[in-house]
Amino acid sequence: MLMLMFLAIVEVIGASIAYSAPIQSASSYRPEQSHTTATAALDVIEVVATGYTAGVESTGKRPGHPGYGITYSGVKVRRDQVSTIAADPKQFPIGTLLYIPGYGYGVVADTGSAIKGNRIDLYFETIKEVYEQWGKRKVEVQVLRRGNGKLTQSWLNGINQAIEVGKPIPQSYLES
Amino acid sequence: MLMLMFLAIVEVIGASIAYSAPIQSASSYRPEQSHTTATAALDVIEVVATGYTAGVESTGKRPGHPGYGITYSGVKVRRDQVSTIAADPKQFPIGTLLYIPGYGYGVVADTGSAIKGNRIDLYFETIKEVYEQWGKRKVEVQVLRRGNGKLTQSWLNGINQAIEVGKPIPQSYLES
Repeated sequence: MLMLMFLAIVEVIGASIAYSAPIQSASSYRPEQSHTTATAALDVIEVVATGYTAGVESTGKRPGHPGYGITYSGVKVRRDQVSTIAADPKQFPIGTLLYIPGYGYGVVADTGSAIKGNRIDLYFETIKEVYEQWGKRKVEVQVLRRGNGKLTQSWLNGINQAIEVGKPIPQSYLES
Repeated sequence: MLMLMFLAIVEVIGASIAYSAPIQSASSYRPEQSHTTATAALDVIEVVATGYTAGVESTGKRPGHPGYGITYSGVKVRRDQVSTIAADPKQFPIGTLLYIPGYGYGVVADTGSAIKGNRIDLYFETIKEVYEQWGKRKVEVQVLRRGNGKLTQSWLNGINQAIEVGKPIPQSYLES
């Protein structure tokens, strides 16, 4: 995804204030894309962000659990103009409002055992949305063998047994 | 994640042959990191890759379904030195062996309704692994409001109602 971000840094009373224009994209609607004017930033911090949902894979809770869909702060999870996100409250206290490129506005409402320091977790409504909206990468793949339309369990077992750490794939598996 | 890839392109009989050294990383073991010598590539192609699992969120099948964990090719899903991946068989026929930076070797074993053209889907054993191993991004976040440790449902409802498309966040929400 092509993203354009324009930051005009202005020093005001010793604090770094950034004015940001929004991410521009031709793809489908997301909250991040609906803002076209600037909001002053108190700080700009590099973090590592993953996605999560209210579901059992992320929270250990299933629908029906009394705490399902309820964040640490008490508010309900939400994907909206301002979404709920998880952070380390020592780094970003509950109630901190962030702008996250590629996601939109997020308010720190939740915590997580693995969410420490400069790690944040972005709420999405479904696992599919995490995969599609946050877990997409452009990569250059190398084609090592052109398939013939078939794959057998014995070939797959064989190549996995044949591969030795630090050695190339045996030529026979590239030709057969 | 820091990734180093060294490609030495050699032209042989008109075909582009790339020799690749492996990705180097200080983080925990993954199949991609266990190979330290070169394998000749027939081609290098840019694709968009997402992660998936055998689970219901990706395949519509739950454990117990006769087709659970079985790819289109008939082989079982596998995360190993050579993992099973999904592709468009018109682009990458079943049995095609790829090297995917950040993932490792993948053999095309599966298909998917959304996996067309230069889209591939990388198999992981768990949703958490998709999130952690493929869905991690480094981003520069802007801090717009420093939280005071509390967040109320009415504040969150209010800011979401107050935000108008194309306008900045009302100042009252940045100060309260």
